[in-house]
Amino acid sequence: MEHSYTLTASCPDRVGIIARVASFIAEHGGWILESSYHSDADNGCAGRYYMRVQMKADSLAFRLSELRQRFAPIAEELQMTWRVTDSAVRKRVVVLVSKQGHCLYDLLARWQSKELDVEIPCVISNHDALRGFVEWHGIPFHHIPVSGDNKAEAFAEVQRIFEEVHGDVMVLARYMQIIPPDLCAAYPVRIINIHHSFLPSFVGARPYHQAYERGVKLIGATCHYVTADLDQGPIIEQDVIRIDHSDSVDDLVRYGKDIEKTVLARGLRFHLDDRVLQHGCKTVVFR
Amino acid sequence: MEHSYTLTASCPDRVGIIARVASFIAEHGGWILESSYHSDADNGCAGRYYMRVQMKADSLAFRLSELRQRFAPIAEELQMTWRVTDSAVRKRVVVLVSKQGHCLYDLLARWQSKELDVEIPCVISNHDALRGFVEWHGIPFHHIPVSGDNKAEAFAEVQRIFEEVHGDVMVLARYMQIIPPDLCAAYPVRIINIHHSFLPSFVGARPYHQAYERGVKLIGATCHYVTADLDQGPIIEQDVIRIDHSDSVDDLVRYGKDIEKTVLARGLRFHLDDRVLQHGCKTVVFR
Amino acid sequence: MEHSYTLTASCPDRVGIIARVASFIAEHGGWILESSYHSDADNGCAGRYYMRVQMKADSLAFRLSELRQRFAPIAEELQMTWRVTDSAVRKRVVVLVSKQGHCLYDLLARWQSKELDVEIPCVISNHDALRGFVEWHGIPFHHIPVSGDNKAEAFAEVQRIFEEVHGDVMVLARYMQIIPPDLCAAYPVRIINIHHSFLPSFVGARPYHQAYERGVKLIGATCHYVTADLDQGPIIEQDVIRIDHSDSVDDLVRYGKDIEKTVLARGLRFHLDDRVLQHGCKTVVFR
Amino acid sequence: MEHSYTLTASCPDRVGIIARVASFIAEHGGWILESSYHSDADNGCAGRYYMRVQMKADSLAFRLSELRQRFAPIAEELQMTWRVTDSAVRKRVVVLVSKQGHCLYDLLARWQSKELDVEIPCVISNHDALRGFVEWHGIPFHHIPVSGDNKAEAFAEVQRIFEEVHGDVMVLARYMQIIPPDLCAAYPVRIINIHHSFLPSFVGARPYHQAYERGVKLIGATCHYVTADLDQGPIIEQDVIRIDHSDSVDDLVRYGKDIEKTVLARGLRFHLDDRVLQHGCKTVVFR
Repeated sequence: MEHSYTLTASCPDRVGIIARVASFIAEHGGWILESSYHSDADNGCAGRYYMRVQMKADSLAFRLSELRQRFAPIAEELQMTWRVTDSAVRKRVVVLVSKQGHCLYDLLARWQSKELDVEIPCVISNHDALRGFVEWHGIPFHHIPVSGDNKAEAFAEVQRIFEEVHGDVMVLARYMQIIPPDLCAAYPVRIINIHHSFLPSFVGARPYHQAYERGVKLIGATCHYVTADLDQGPIIEQDVIRIDHSDSVDDLVRYGKDIEKTVLARGLRFHLDDRVLQHGCKTVVFR
Repeated sequence: MEHSYTLTASCPDRVGIIARVASFIAEHGGWILESSYHSDADNGCAGRYYMRVQMKADSLAFRLSELRQRFAPIAEELQMTWRVTDSAVRKRVVVLVSKQGHCLYDLLARWQSKELDVEIPCVISNHDALRGFVEWHGIPFHHIPVSGDNKAEAFAEVQRIFEEVHGDVMVLARYMQIIPPDLCAAYPVRIINIHHSFLPSFVGARPYHQAYERGVKLIGATCHYVTADLDQGPIIEQDVIRIDHSDSVDDLVRYGKDIEKTVLARGLRFHLDDRVLQHGCKTVVFR
Repeated sequence: MEHSYTLTASCPDRVGIIARVASFIAEHGGWILESSYHSDADNGCAGRYYMRVQMKADSLAFRLSELRQRFAPIAEELQMTWRVTDSAVRKRVVVLVSKQGHCLYDLLARWQSKELDVEIPCVISNHDALRGFVEWHGIPFHHIPVSGDNKAEAFAEVQRIFEEVHGDVMVLARYMQIIPPDLCAAYPVRIINIHHSFLPSFVGARPYHQAYERGVKLIGATCHYVTADLDQGPIIEQDVIRIDHSDSVDDLVRYGKDIEKTVLARGLRFHLDDRVLQHGCKTVVFR
Repeated sequence: MEHSYTLTASCPDRVGIIARVASFIAEHGGWILESSYHSDADNGCAGRYYMRVQMKADSLAFRLSELRQRFAPIAEELQMTWRVTDSAVRKRVVVLVSKQGHCLYDLLARWQSKELDVEIPCVISNHDALRGFVEWHGIPFHHIPVSGDNKAEAFAEVQRIFEEVHGDVMVLARYMQIIPPDLCAAYPVRIINIHHSFLPSFVGARPYHQAYERGVKLIGATCHYVTADLDQGPIIEQDVIRIDHSDSVDDLVRYGKDIEKTVLARGLRFHLDDRVLQHGCKTVVFR
């Protein structure tokens, strides 16, 4: 993987945005590896503009801090919400799990093989079941039980650890606990959940039972950012698998796991590659 | 296509159902072309049994009426809900449309090429737009306008025509009108609708707008039997297609049409081939 | 649909391409509706750059001819292969069919509903079977029989008609005849075929029989540009559908038709929207 | 999971097969949980009949050995190739891997969570890379290097271990070595491979490079039984995933891994549940 910087930005749409940004990059010798643009203009009225530009780090005459400094006036002029990330700085992913291990095995397989080029500073769980597996990989494991009584303290501890390890993103890999609103608010578009249904169908608990009762012919999973509204956050990725009348609820759960882990891994990767931009209650995903 | 009889049945599950039915067929020399069985037993408790057995008509020593007569006592003994159909008797499909023609073109293409080996005694529409196309195919076209005032009369006329042409199944090929409860009740599991969303998401009108607003990453369509509960009938078939942030509502409508017509055609074919058995608010589909 | 101009271009990759093009557009007040870029650089070595930029026609101070004139020096400087199209000029699609009508019904349904906003100046066929259906739509139909003896004359006639009606693109909608090399050469990336297999599997005739014999679990279709090498042209779009052991060759043919027409329609639309750029024996498709 | 016996059989098609088998089961009080039948008759001529019948073990008055003994005369009369398995006897799966761990992680996650209810008596590899991971799970690991010189000895050792641990099925989970013909012949329909392409496209090595060069729009994976003809064995399961021009060979490899592990797991499960019957160079898979 080549060393690169990635600029992601959104701003009010107008004439000349690409020209302004691309000219700035070209003036400094920046070699563009990949660039994507999206205007959400609907019905002819001007809307908001979204972009992602990835450039070779070595093609620029200066370093990241100076790139940010020089770009700031342009961003201000265009009223941009923006950020530049450095491929050499590996993101820090804190994984939260419960007792089911299928998403965790999947994520650690990708991490182990360097397909997922991130740091996993720790795994947090409300159960102790997966400690051995996590620790065998050399990753610290924190057991923080959650009960009706200690919810506030438990999530304060989760947040304390996340801060302590300088977490960039929190991944709920079938964590099965509802994140309190203040924690959601503390990390907007930084908490990623995998919900075991094709949202907006079957929100809440026991979606496979709901799917079975309704007699749907496909089931799915949804990777989304967590907000205070349960299962209502911006969707990053979804997929489905075909089932039929011969499948029991247990079969649905089993098929569902394959979709859950794949959709979580794809959604997380889009996030880590800075391909996801929030767009109100939706997302722009530059694949 | 070989001349065949198809027995479909459901009954309380017990030991010996297949043995009883298959022995009866074998005793009379019946050659089984295809047979499918399903028990909905869940959690170990005995449930209901579903079956579909297709046999060569010529392998039996007698005709359909005698087959029915001889099978009746067995069916009674097993407390069966059952029916036998004859592949030589083409089913009569009455198609209801509104102004959009994509499902109609698709159905008539299949009918024209004999892929769909049925009679279409007439097409009924609340608009006159598709008359020429239908009549060119030699199929009678009835224009029955529906307004707030005349709903009861209009659907009485629909029912009168359906009876007059001896319709077996009514297909709502994007008909866009809500069928009154009494008409639903008159033809249980004989009215098939295509809903332009992946149910149970986005019931009611404007599902593509709802899907766009929610930011889902796949859209779908659902073929189901019509019941008095809008968009709640037993689902026969569903499918989805991937979309992304760059797609407008118009794009969703366009992609959706391809899914709608394909899912309707598949669901209708399952029905016509006697592959669909109602199972409470769900279906068993023997593919 | 807004009136727009679409620039598609490819050129050797270097620093500053987007800046040069986007600045040119911005200088003249051009409002960019959609823009896509791709670099095929592999293994770190500079490759070829591909782009598609769609702008509001009314945002520019001048008309298309002047846009082309003013852009020409930039294109020359960047060593571009390029073209600008005008959304107000409907492309002229000549459809070639044989006896099977499923793709033709599908295309004419899209044309009739204006989903496919093109001119169809005529349909050409080696059989007379679909004449009535085509003529009912008000489209001229040419019956040009093809036999072992008259192949050269027949295709000379096809070419004469294509020229006479000023065809932009020739669509082989299950035409079932091999296009002679000189005709292929006359219209590079302007002849689109739908092949009834998931290429490169099962080239040549009877792909469904080959698929059945091999026992594959999915079958597909491939929309590609026609070149002198049979079934080897650049692939525009593909899709598949699941089958199983219970499906006969006839079932495969039937399932296949649904994939064929959908894949052809999608591929053709990408082409008509100037989303497809040739890339050696491959394509770049800006969706 | 209920204790059950599963009969799988194939025989020449004739009248009365189901009646004979189902009556035998019913006479002994056998409760049928699931039953599937397939006739491969094509073009009207009688062919071969395939069946799978799963019954509650406790509903029968006798044990498995007596079931086999009593069924044998019927099987002989019907000229059956047949077998009965016992759900209480867990199959013994020997996994062969090379250096890549994605399929192994996936299989062990399923084994750990009891989704895959099997014994894994050992893992064999031509590299030592995955030893720690395997041994952490309490599974013996055998490192048997394979080189040009020692191929015969190496595979003799593989076979010796497979025999020693009483392996039922050998799973090549991206083992990357060609199995010698004599080993293939020793275990017909007992060696399962995952090939990293949608066969029959891209046989042999480097299929992702071939797919990239050809410019296909979907890539896939194939789970099949191993025979002496490389990549020609009966296909059990396949699936595909969409790619586009922006994907490099590395991206294809990455997407491919997700398909490989899912398709291998599905195919293996079908095999372990006795859902796969060989049918010449094809398979019948009763899902």
